[in-house]
Amino acid sequence: MIKVGLLGCGTVGGGVIQLLRANAAYIAARVGAPIDVARVLVRDPAKERVAELDRARLTTDPEAVLGDASLDVIVEVMGGVDPARAHLTRAIEAGKQIVTANKMLLALHGSELLERSQKRGVDLAFEGAVGGGIPVIRVLRDALASDTIAGLAGIVNGTSNYILTRMRQDGLSFEAALAEAQQKGYAEADPSLDVDGGDAAHKLVVLAMLAFGARLDGVSVATEGIRGVSPIDHAFAERFGYLVKHLAIAKHRAAGLELRVHPALVAKDSPLANINGVLNAISIEGRALGPCLLSGRGAGDLPTAVSVVADLVDVAIAKKGGVAGLATRAIRLAPAILAPMGDVEARYYFRFSVYDRPGVLARITGALGERGVSIEQLVQQGRGTTDVPVDVVMLTHEAKESAVQAALTAIGASDDVAKPPRMIRVH
Amino acid sequence: MIKVGLLGCGTVGGGVIQLLRANAAYIAARVGAPIDVARVLVRDPAKERVAELDRARLTTDPEAVLGDASLDVIVEVMGGVDPARAHLTRAIEAGKQIVTANKMLLALHGSELLERSQKRGVDLAFEGAVGGGIPVIRVLRDALASDTIAGLAGIVNGTSNYILTRMRQDGLSFEAALAEAQQKGYAEADPSLDVDGGDAAHKLVVLAMLAFGARLDGVSVATEGIRGVSPIDHAFAERFGYLVKHLAIAKHRAAGLELRVHPALVAKDSPLANINGVLNAISIEGRALGPCLLSGRGAGDLPTAVSVVADLVDVAIAKKGGVAGLATRAIRLAPAILAPMGDVEARYYFRFSVYDRPGVLARITGALGERGVSIEQLVQQGRGTTDVPVDVVMLTHEAKESAVQAALTAIGASDDVAKPPRMIRVH
Repeated sequence: MIKVGLLGCGTVGGGVIQLLRANAAYIAARVGAPIDVARVLVRDPAKERVAELDRARLTTDPEAVLGDASLDVIVEVMGGVDPARAHLTRAIEAGKQIVTANKMLLALHGSELLERSQKRGVDLAFEGAVGGGIPVIRVLRDALASDTIAGLAGIVNGTSNYILTRMRQDGLSFEAALAEAQQKGYAEADPSLDVDGGDAAHKLVVLAMLAFGARLDGVSVATEGIRGVSPIDHAFAERFGYLVKHLAIAKHRAAGLELRVHPALVAKDSPLANINGVLNAISIEGRALGPCLLSGRGAGDLPTAVSVVADLVDVAIAKKGGVAGLATRAIRLAPAILAPMGDVEARYYFRFSVYDRPGVLARITGALGERGVSIEQLVQQGRGTTDVPVDVVMLTHEAKESAVQAALTAIGASDDVAKPPRMIRVH
Repeated sequence: MIKVGLLGCGTVGGGVIQLLRANAAYIAARVGAPIDVARVLVRDPAKERVAELDRARLTTDPEAVLGDASLDVIVEVMGGVDPARAHLTRAIEAGKQIVTANKMLLALHGSELLERSQKRGVDLAFEGAVGGGIPVIRVLRDALASDTIAGLAGIVNGTSNYILTRMRQDGLSFEAALAEAQQKGYAEADPSLDVDGGDAAHKLVVLAMLAFGARLDGVSVATEGIRGVSPIDHAFAERFGYLVKHLAIAKHRAAGLELRVHPALVAKDSPLANINGVLNAISIEGRALGPCLLSGRGAGDLPTAVSVVADLVDVAIAKKGGVAGLATRAIRLAPAILAPMGDVEARYYFRFSVYDRPGVLARITGALGERGVSIEQLVQQGRGTTDVPVDVVMLTHEAKESAVQAALTAIGASDDVAKPPRMIRVH
């Protein structure tokens, strides 16, 4: 018998209990012993929960779970940094095997928790933290055991992807698409963690920690959300052969790790382009493997629960086989240098709201050109006047971020434009 | 020290040796012991090989490998059914951990070898057999440990996908695209196993065995290759919003397992549509997980070697931890009933080469209609005459395969058409 303490029993926790029950015989055969969820920490024991749960096992007292020496595994699906961090720290020190789906905790304290687990000789598994049911953590950790990762790029926030998809497919405004997402339960009442990119940044840190063996706890990721993307950007992107997606990007470069989260133009015929609605996808570039894409449902109770249970089965097998901690010990973590955002090189999409005055395009392209930013394509939509601005859109050749930022600042400060220029990087 | 005997040392075997050497320290940390390729069975010891290989370990005598009691793992990358089958059977009986990348062997004798391994308490790992470096076997086996699979569909033959991609993108004929693939090394001198679908059928059997826990050794899969697809089919498919892809499809249905390999129309905005060139992709539908897509390089020495080494690391860890056989023992295999191909229900694309005679379309649609096959769209390309045929293309509503086959046979036998009708199923 493998005895489990479950911290939290919301939608994911409920899904875990359901899946464990539905697949009990198979899982027992796989582990070599049945898995028993012996204790469940909840906030409100009176709340309606999954039918499979024996209510006598519920407790509101963390001590009843963390102090129970008979438990083999602690599964944390309560979310948030505190008190999850303290609970897991204590469980690791007590020699429990750990499963967590807590991306925010891992982004802020993942390396610390991993290294603590390594010292204590226990496993810390966290497939559920990124990409819901997409087995990307497993792939980075196990399948690519003999490869090194050059980079990865992912659509890791389902809410943002849903909103961008609806804007593109039906011309909705950001606000209308967000309201629809909220109404369908795809976005929270306060959507900022999703639409401003914070959630994607957390997931990127977890992915990069594993992909590059880098200590990244609490690192600051250059992050832009999708609030600035307007329907007209989708229309222009499509005209150039691209779609607008919200990407989390990590690259291993000689100068350091490049970590960034922002909207990006993705070529229409690339695999990431067809990841629509609430789907997530992560594209990994292995040096030996080449490109590899994983996609699926990035959120939701059951997909995430599938990942949590897969982890639970893994750590239970290791516990049963007396090899607890071995898989986690193999994760190498070293200090990482982050490359400054200004050093990023990419192609860029610009949209300027321009007053149609003599010499205006010459001044704008001049401001770009003198900083080494050269234009590949330029489209002016209709004609403006000296008082009514018109959209001018450009696609650049490869350029340096710092030069682009300097040029946009200069152009934005001029009288030629009606509002700050809009910039989207091309992936 | 984990001692390995390698059967075969072609491109994949050479890749395995390179990767083991390049990642020796990391792999040793992961396994808890270094991995040593102690014996290598080859046909020609004089042949030029990877520099990393100590030539003193080469042998042409299977006995020198299979009879070596000191070996812990046998890695089979020689290919073919005989003598690989006998070698692996012997190695299993001797209690070795097994890694193989041999899809043909597994399609014909995989269940037998798996059950033999289960009895003997050893692991049989075979990630390299399907999808090159795409970790689909691992995902089916581990990540979905708590889910059941409703179905899967894959682009699993890189040669066929390359040819179809070139035909579509540049209007090449099948013959020209095949010649180009051969010249680039993507197709064999005898391409029949690839372009006639046999290779995809082998891979499908391996995937379905694992996805559905089904004993499928030597099962007959309804298989069509891509020789019959012409550039005009690509053009019409695009007009309808589809692309032509070569798919391997497995579905779990109440009546039995549906296994089929054939060209198919795939919606342009679906994830499989953007899998171009030699890339492979497998789309899995988990009952709890929902849809999940994995894509990447389906062949090539290094991608496949990445998978073989990942398997080798897994079985070495299990050996070292004293839990050899546990992962393999969890694979459940039961007899399977195959659903007859005639029971398949799908939408269909038809292309008829029709003489433009009075009443001809009425006769064709009548032959379809009286068997319950109804037309959703119909396009006639230009005008023919009573002697010069013209292409008439149709897309049907959902229909039954047996009815479609009967109607096409009847129409093909009539004087109204110049040649047998062309049919492609819609996915």
